[in-house]
Amino acid sequence: MDNVLAVLNLGDFAQAFSKMGMFPVFDLAYYIVSILYLKYEPGSVEVSRRSPVASWLCAMLYCFGSYILADIMLGHSPLDYFQHNSHILLASAVWYLIFYCPLNLFYKCVAFLPVKLVLVALKEVVRTRKIAAGVHHAHHAYHHGFIIMVIVGYVKGSGVALMSNFEQLLRGVWRPETNEILNMSFPTKASLYGAILFTLQEAHWLPVSKSTLILIFTLFMATSKVVMTARHSHGSPFTLIESWVCHLLFGSPLAGAEEDHHAAAPTSPLKTKEELSDGARKRKAKKAE
Amino acid sequence: MDNVLAVLNLGDFAQAFSKMGMFPVFDLAYYIVSILYLKYEPGSVEVSRRSPVASWLCAMLYCFGSYILADIMLGHSPLDYFQHNSHILLASAVWYLIFYCPLNLFYKCVAFLPVKLVLVALKEVVRTRKIAAGVHHAHHAYHHGFIIMVIVGYVKGSGVALMSNFEQLLRGVWRPETNEILNMSFPTKASLYGAILFTLQEAHWLPVSKSTLILIFTLFMATSKVVMTARHSHGSPFTLIESWVCHLLFGSPLAGAEEDHHAAAPTSPLKTKEELSDGARKRKAKKAE
Amino acid sequence: MDNVLAVLNLGDFAQAFSKMGMFPVFDLAYYIVSILYLKYEPGSVEVSRRSPVASWLCAMLYCFGSYILADIMLGHSPLDYFQHNSHILLASAVWYLIFYCPLNLFYKCVAFLPVKLVLVALKEVVRTRKIAAGVHHAHHAYHHGFIIMVIVGYVKGSGVALMSNFEQLLRGVWRPETNEILNMSFPTKASLYGAILFTLQEAHWLPVSKSTLILIFTLFMATSKVVMTARHSHGSPFTLIESWVCHLLFGSPLAGAEEDHHAAAPTSPLKTKEELSDGARKRKAKKAE
Repeated sequence: MDNVLAVLNLGDFAQAFSKMGMFPVFDLAYYIVSILYLKYEPGSVEVSRRSPVASWLCAMLYCFGSYILADIMLGHSPLDYFQHNSHILLASAVWYLIFYCPLNLFYKCVAFLPVKLVLVALKEVVRTRKIAAGVHHAHHAYHHGFIIMVIVGYVKGSGVALMSNFEQLLRGVWRPETNEILNMSFPTKASLYGAILFTLQEAHWLPVSKSTLILIFTLFMATSKVVMTARHSHGSPFTLIESWVCHLLFGSPLAGAEEDHHAAAPTSPLKTKEELSDGARKRKAKKAE
Repeated sequence: MDNVLAVLNLGDFAQAFSKMGMFPVFDLAYYIVSILYLKYEPGSVEVSRRSPVASWLCAMLYCFGSYILADIMLGHSPLDYFQHNSHILLASAVWYLIFYCPLNLFYKCVAFLPVKLVLVALKEVVRTRKIAAGVHHAHHAYHHGFIIMVIVGYVKGSGVALMSNFEQLLRGVWRPETNEILNMSFPTKASLYGAILFTLQEAHWLPVSKSTLILIFTLFMATSKVVMTARHSHGSPFTLIESWVCHLLFGSPLAGAEEDHHAAAPTSPLKTKEELSDGARKRKAKKAE
Repeated sequence: MDNVLAVLNLGDFAQAFSKMGMFPVFDLAYYIVSILYLKYEPGSVEVSRRSPVASWLCAMLYCFGSYILADIMLGHSPLDYFQHNSHILLASAVWYLIFYCPLNLFYKCVAFLPVKLVLVALKEVVRTRKIAAGVHHAHHAYHHGFIIMVIVGYVKGSGVALMSNFEQLLRGVWRPETNEILNMSFPTKASLYGAILFTLQEAHWLPVSKSTLILIFTLFMATSKVVMTARHSHGSPFTLIESWVCHLLFGSPLAGAEEDHHAAAPTSPLKTKEELSDGARKRKAKKAE
């Protein structure tokens, strides 16, 4: 793999790319996209009017949930990341502009599709770096704790999604019948696979350098998410292969047979989130204003 | 500020007041008032009959919730405070007397208004000291983590209120539609403002000594809570200024316009706790016996 | 006590028994019985088909919940135990065999009553050792924290039961009206009493050596659980004495008067778990396949 890259003269680029600082440009994009998704959540605009403190806390969970969860998983203070005052202030400014900017100007700018696509791509750069950092951090604490590495990388990549039940509870919403583990969205699944890959790399079972893996995984994530955002799609490029693997290993019904399965169990309540398309959520957010 | 106090010869008094030990008199008042509020909660008397362990755990959360939360926030053991056996035994004795004393004698004594007013005032002395200690403790761990200082001071002041959803869950009650962040009560709000003040003082942005701030904030809290308890009121002295600030900064509807807002959204489910006045809750607690 | 054992020549046996390694035989039995109980839970088979990750996580909570909770209680990383890769792999293999083995062969073997009784007995050996280790561990961290010792021993013995609400939430089930503290099952109660005994022993208030206490408590637990499992019973040998103690200390209604109490409050919702007998749950698990 590294040889191929050497031929393409990409090794140095990968090295430089993996050393590039994330603050403030990439982090800013991460905060904007994250808080944009918070604004799409039904009821979040009303909460921002009635209780700014709850709204700010939710925004912080959306921006820093991955750090909070990873710190909890490794037994550190969940507030550890909040010592970076500049990051918190930047995220707070984004929160204020998205929720309270006069005429909703800022929201309209960043939710404008071409702008949003760029921001989404930048966000995936941060996500990949977080997964790699999470795995590395866990490796530092537990040299042979491969399962711990996967879990910490996973929570670093998934962030607030893994605690969505409790984030919703903060806004007075409670939907116990579903959660991100039961119904994994594409970013959560990709974070899991990414965490496994980075753990294999850290354990030297994957014949590729970390910077190369970061570059490839970033390209994959950014492309996938940009395409999915442009198409307002919630499908996943893994569906086909996952369907077959799960069928063979766990006896899950095949994706093709899904309809029959649904006919047999028509009252499955675990679809609410996925059935809400991005567009529908946006319309709701607009109506709520 | 300190000059004014020097003229009034209050500096030494503030110094002595801020050094005064809290155990056992003030802590005892804190435990009594806290467990009294637990007994006011609907269903808590029934739980104390059916499951003394659950009732004792709730009582411990009411008495030591602030320490538990602050320890969690700073990454320490949540049981850390439970090494102080004498404090736990004192709180357990208060719990036993309030819930199981023959003829309900102890409860009747401490719930007698004049006694209760003294206890409430003493409780606020402890609360202020906790906020100051929390901010100081966080400052020790994170020298420039101003946001961490505010959060730790806030949870030290608010205590069990911030985890009321989970405390209720322990008693088999689940009210996800509201929580203390969405509908802040007066002590929670005051704790937040107090934590901000003490953080400003710790960062030397407030030209006042810590002992003076403790004295002034204690006086404010004790007066407010005593007046509110005497009047069975749940209003807050901050309402007017908050209403204007929130209107300007966050576009919240003004307090005067609240009625129109409610007419527009008459099915708001987020009022349950505030609509239950102190008196109503007390009557319920009596009926349950 | 130790003299009696010396006469019976049991001291050496107790010593050897308390030194015996738990991995892999006893731990294997623990994992099998724990995941068997997970499979009895209504809906868990369906979850294993739809979301293997959620099912695996639940299985890990069933097997290692006691370590996770104890680590949280002592302020360590909740993932600390996951550094033991061989334990995790063994538990994962058991999970896979119980849920996905062709023809359900493995499940049928281990759920066959004589086999299950042996496994249940072995599981109680592990439980007792966990309680003793938990108390010892807490004693190491807090020399005079007797309450901490009891709590840590208790969570080490009870394990996933104490977080059953959140384990169920992972599977999309939410039953807030009951929890393990409100309605303690026999193992949870026995763990509490065991934790108190081991704490008294650690504090030298109980004139018995630790190895002897481990032997006696193991015999008591194994016998009780085997008898209860054989009889499909959920009663507890403590009922009579508990009923009197609770009546005297906490004014709880006597067990004999329970029927009157239920007649007075016929809509008590807090019985769901206990009313589901072992057999009934097993039938449901079978139907779900």
